[in-house]
Amino acid sequence: MLREWKEPVRPGEEELKMRLAAAREKLAAQQLLIKEQKVPVLVLLEGWGTAGKGYCIGQIIENIDPRHFKVESMERKTGEEERKPFLYRHFTRIPEAGKFVFLDSGWMDEVVEERLHGELSEEKYAKRIESVRRFERQLTDNGYLVMKFFLHISKKEQTRRMERLTDEKDTVWRVGKKDLWQNSHYEKCMDAFSSYLKSTNMPSAPWYIVDAKSKKWTELQVLETLTQGIDIALDNRDMAVPLLQNVFPLERMPLLSEIPLDKTLDEETYRKELKHLKQRLGELHNRLYRKKVPVIIAYEGWDAAGKGGNIKRITSALDPRGYEVHPIASPEPHEKARHYLWRFWTRLPKTGHIAIFDRSWYGRVMVERLEGFCTENDWMRAYNEINEFEKELHDWGAVIIKFWVQIDKDTQLERFNERQNTPEKQWKITEEDWRNREKWDQYETAVNEMITKTSTTYAPWHILESVDKKYARIKALRIVIEELEKALD
Amino acid sequence: MLREWKEPVRPGEEELKMRLAAAREKLAAQQLLIKEQKVPVLVLLEGWGTAGKGYCIGQIIENIDPRHFKVESMERKTGEEERKPFLYRHFTRIPEAGKFVFLDSGWMDEVVEERLHGELSEEKYAKRIESVRRFERQLTDNGYLVMKFFLHISKKEQTRRMERLTDEKDTVWRVGKKDLWQNSHYEKCMDAFSSYLKSTNMPSAPWYIVDAKSKKWTELQVLETLTQGIDIALDNRDMAVPLLQNVFPLERMPLLSEIPLDKTLDEETYRKELKHLKQRLGELHNRLYRKKVPVIIAYEGWDAAGKGGNIKRITSALDPRGYEVHPIASPEPHEKARHYLWRFWTRLPKTGHIAIFDRSWYGRVMVERLEGFCTENDWMRAYNEINEFEKELHDWGAVIIKFWVQIDKDTQLERFNERQNTPEKQWKITEEDWRNREKWDQYETAVNEMITKTSTTYAPWHILESVDKKYARIKALRIVIEELEKALD
Repeated sequence: MLREWKEPVRPGEEELKMRLAAAREKLAAQQLLIKEQKVPVLVLLEGWGTAGKGYCIGQIIENIDPRHFKVESMERKTGEEERKPFLYRHFTRIPEAGKFVFLDSGWMDEVVEERLHGELSEEKYAKRIESVRRFERQLTDNGYLVMKFFLHISKKEQTRRMERLTDEKDTVWRVGKKDLWQNSHYEKCMDAFSSYLKSTNMPSAPWYIVDAKSKKWTELQVLETLTQGIDIALDNRDMAVPLLQNVFPLERMPLLSEIPLDKTLDEETYRKELKHLKQRLGELHNRLYRKKVPVIIAYEGWDAAGKGGNIKRITSALDPRGYEVHPIASPEPHEKARHYLWRFWTRLPKTGHIAIFDRSWYGRVMVERLEGFCTENDWMRAYNEINEFEKELHDWGAVIIKFWVQIDKDTQLERFNERQNTPEKQWKITEEDWRNREKWDQYETAVNEMITKTSTTYAPWHILESVDKKYARIKALRIVIEELEKALD
Repeated sequence: MLREWKEPVRPGEEELKMRLAAAREKLAAQQLLIKEQKVPVLVLLEGWGTAGKGYCIGQIIENIDPRHFKVESMERKTGEEERKPFLYRHFTRIPEAGKFVFLDSGWMDEVVEERLHGELSEEKYAKRIESVRRFERQLTDNGYLVMKFFLHISKKEQTRRMERLTDEKDTVWRVGKKDLWQNSHYEKCMDAFSSYLKSTNMPSAPWYIVDAKSKKWTELQVLETLTQGIDIALDNRDMAVPLLQNVFPLERMPLLSEIPLDKTLDEETYRKELKHLKQRLGELHNRLYRKKVPVIIAYEGWDAAGKGGNIKRITSALDPRGYEVHPIASPEPHEKARHYLWRFWTRLPKTGHIAIFDRSWYGRVMVERLEGFCTENDWMRAYNEINEFEKELHDWGAVIIKFWVQIDKDTQLERFNERQNTPEKQWKITEEDWRNREKWDQYETAVNEMITKTSTTYAPWHILESVDKKYARIKALRIVIEELEKALD
């Protein structure tokens, strides 16, 4: 894309000044609309070393109240980040509704850099591109405005700037090894940038190539494009988002009503099996820690189906230093203000660790759907978004195990009553549980649709028949062990 | 302390079993009281390598619902953590009200380890001990239950365990270099542990030395002590906390009413000075980045005093990659559930970076005091707690600059009216501002007390006379520059 790019005509000094003043004022006014209408705005500045990304961001934010924006600059990955999926450190930095995040380079820089230095095979590079495209589309589909700028300068200009910076004691540190390497491999870098720009140039988040030859001119191009983008985003806010077809292979699953619930296990077999399986799981936990395999286990199921007790049988076999249980309740304000997957991205395990989710991202297509916490378009889109999310985790190397804990309506009533009548258990039952129970049939429809549409081959659902909790616990342990064994071989 | 310690008598097998069952049940019941009464519980397990800290935690948490606890194990410092004050990674991990955090070793391990390996001079070690004592006292003073256990085993027992672990392929990784070193320097380590235990054995957070010879016996001692501790904490909840005298040297400050507000600056001098000072600040920013000096600037002041515009004049001189502005509003639920300083600990800058707080931890002794968001004892204690907090930052090497932006009541009224009558500025004025204005006199009393009690020599307040905003901006820039110059020399 860079080779075909035509340098825009720079306006005269007088015009430049006037247009700059106008654009600045416009942005200052727009920040309030953005806030009012709760649009999250992600502004990504990529480009050549010394092109002036940092300076440009510095100028732009002068027009915005500090309460409304955040600047993030991509430094080297921390040890923690190295142990998370590629998108982790990017996804966790997305803005809240009504606010701006400015990124001083981001995932483009990371991907192209790794490709240029041979750290990514062509196959892995292609996967990264897929990840990026999905990531950006998930943001724009969910109402994010994503503005991507590439600050372009010629080789000659880059050389000149580096020389000038190196001359000054206080600025010499700004010219890094990376810049030097880029300058002496300018053509090769140009090709890599171009190819990345082309592959990620999407209608909902296109690239804007900026002529970065002079500071004020750079600022003007970015400001004018940004403010236009904001205008369009505010206008289009209520337009429907197209639903994408699911593109991932699915497994055939039974409907809830087809699942026989008469399975039981006698006390003695249970005790013996439990002891034996827990020991085996403990051994596997040691091995996956050493092999650095991340494991994600999600529990969903009816209220009082026995999720808690089931989870406890898994965790009691594990070293507490190597796992974490995340009970998922309704989102807190700072979570609600971001993409609904954000609070799960921030809770991902490190490699070698196990994260167990007691309720999960599937809330989007169950409670959020039924309670109207999101629009129909939102939850319909979510099946595919969730499959994409899990694909990302799978490609990273994670073992993903999803349990639906199943009971029938009578069993639930029995257990609710028992909780209500046992003082130590009363805290486990709330008004909300009774209200949800009234919506059993609607939930059943939603769960069936969920299981059908998100049982991908790489992350299928497992049903735990839990009228006999002992049976369900042993089955869960067996499945976890089996999946870990597969992953460790 | 370890050498004087007398091994407790282990009960017989039968008694052990019974007492264990009773203690487990008790803890299971207590978790609900803890939740109801919103007590945060921090359980710290320290001790010899292979003493069984992780295993013991694993047993204990089986009695607690996963929604009510978190386990943290102290791994090696991340790059990010290396660039924060010593207490950062510990303070950020404290529990929420109503929940447990179990720490598989923590600050004791870190401090003793560094001392043993000569990374801490005796002087620095003494400072660390001071920090730890203050940290733990700040927690217990603020209603935290802090239970500290040291799991003790003999040299012989440690040798035996290490041999057994090393024999097994799956467990050999558990014996680290650290354990080996400890074992071959057992006496030296014993002395270091003892001395640490003695120096940090405080009435409100004493040490419990646990005979860790066998697993069940270890569990019993920890469980019984923990449950007793919880009982006492629940009983003592409403007891007054003693106020500590301030022990830090203070600077003499004027009362607000004594500050002349007639200072002004003409437009031309302002323009010239602004340009010159911004350039100077930009240069200093480069230098402190290279020298890795962290800078913390806190702004407090009357509504409409001009904090925002003042901050903007500072930030526009800075590289956006090197600073962050933190606008402080009322705390979110997960913040309110923790020690009031937690949300500031989590927002500290890295070394070499600048953090600007638009309102700050001083909310405790202003809005929280006046609105009754905390008890009288709480805010009276806070002066000293805040001085301690800033001392911690100062000892870490941070430059701390605190501004009080001062105007008179008439000027505020003028500016409120102007905001109300200018459409683009209306969002800046709320009902709350008017309500606060009615409490001007009460605020003035609180501010005077705050400035008097927290103007320590290492972090004094600076008054910015801001009836003429231009004057205040230039004064702020000058002070920042002067403080940075001092730190960089």
